[in-house]
Amino acid sequence: MSQILDEVLAANAHYQASFGDKGSLAAPPARHFAILTCMDARLDPAKYAGLAEGDAHVIRNAGGRASDDAIRSLVISYKLLGTKEWFVIHHTDCGMQSFTDAILRDLLAQSLETAVVDADGWHDVGQGPGSTEANYLSFLPIKDLVSSVVEDVQRIRRHPLVPATIPVYGYIYDVKSGQLLEVPTATAAGRAAN
Amino acid sequence: MSQILDEVLAANAHYQASFGDKGSLAAPPARHFAILTCMDARLDPAKYAGLAEGDAHVIRNAGGRASDDAIRSLVISYKLLGTKEWFVIHHTDCGMQSFTDAILRDLLAQSLETAVVDADGWHDVGQGPGSTEANYLSFLPIKDLVSSVVEDVQRIRRHPLVPATIPVYGYIYDVKSGQLLEVPTATAAGRAAN
Repeated sequence: MSQILDEVLAANAHYQASFGDKGSLAAPPARHFAILTCMDARLDPAKYAGLAEGDAHVIRNAGGRASDDAIRSLVISYKLLGTKEWFVIHHTDCGMQSFTDAILRDLLAQSLETAVVDADGWHDVGQGPGSTEANYLSFLPIKDLVSSVVEDVQRIRRHPLVPATIPVYGYIYDVKSGQLLEVPTATAAGRAAN
Repeated sequence: MSQILDEVLAANAHYQASFGDKGSLAAPPARHFAILTCMDARLDPAKYAGLAEGDAHVIRNAGGRASDDAIRSLVISYKLLGTKEWFVIHHTDCGMQSFTDAILRDLLAQSLETAVVDADGWHDVGQGPGSTEANYLSFLPIKDLVSSVVEDVQRIRRHPLVPATIPVYGYIYDVKSGQLLEVPTATAAGRAAN
């Protein structure tokens, strides 16, 4: 068994031992909101936004992007589980700022193994074969952090399955300080405020 | 300003005040693994799996499903940020078990507002208009929890951009006890073990 698996299961046993009455929590988020943020290991949304178990939906992917799948999750969050406000939270020093689709497709075409990065950019060091499958998808890299938040908030607001009344807030999390910095978006109170 | 926004920003100020030296953490996960799990509010992966900031990637969506977007995130996690083991963790009492694509499409066609559920199932109570846009996408509902974990682990293992050497572990989190329950999958040590 892997050391990581051992450690995760040991931590889980510890968590169970102090689980208390959390088994009685209901599925709908008690505080009726959802956060869409990045998978980055440095981010702990429960800590940086003050969530206890049962409080809020947390959706995470590479970049915290408003992908079709994130919107699938948000629609379920609102339509079936009653959240009423949503946050889009990207962060400084995001790995998604370090590449383009062309760069990642090229790396994956060379090998599937982990690449290395230096001042000259990314280099593939793995043994092939790679795959050209990445040519058929976008990895949603980020060129400019503020723009990515604004675009993602707007994409969510404009989605035909998203009601106009849901406020969608845009923020950037600063990994150096832990601070949430507001990103002005045109209609922070939702499209209804237009 | 909304009460939730007030509360989140107050919690964030508290987090910043005790941020310590976390600003020096690097982007690549220190413990080289990733967890794909559900957005459900009752789940706190950092707590149930013992993660500190900087340890591991956490990807979350409705159901913890191995959607194309989750795989996008996992490929970035491995290829650019060096994770070496992945967990797929669904959970008991998942909202994704309570509907089908047909049910959710019908609800959304009636209105975009939050529906209600009772012993007879889901009922739309909102004011229209709804949208037929949902007919063009799948919400990835779950019929059987064990099958959903097995299928998602297998989908990840078989993906052409995923190296055969990555172990992918399948688990179900019990929301009543906090326990992680292993789901036997055919090749838990990765395709390389076949």
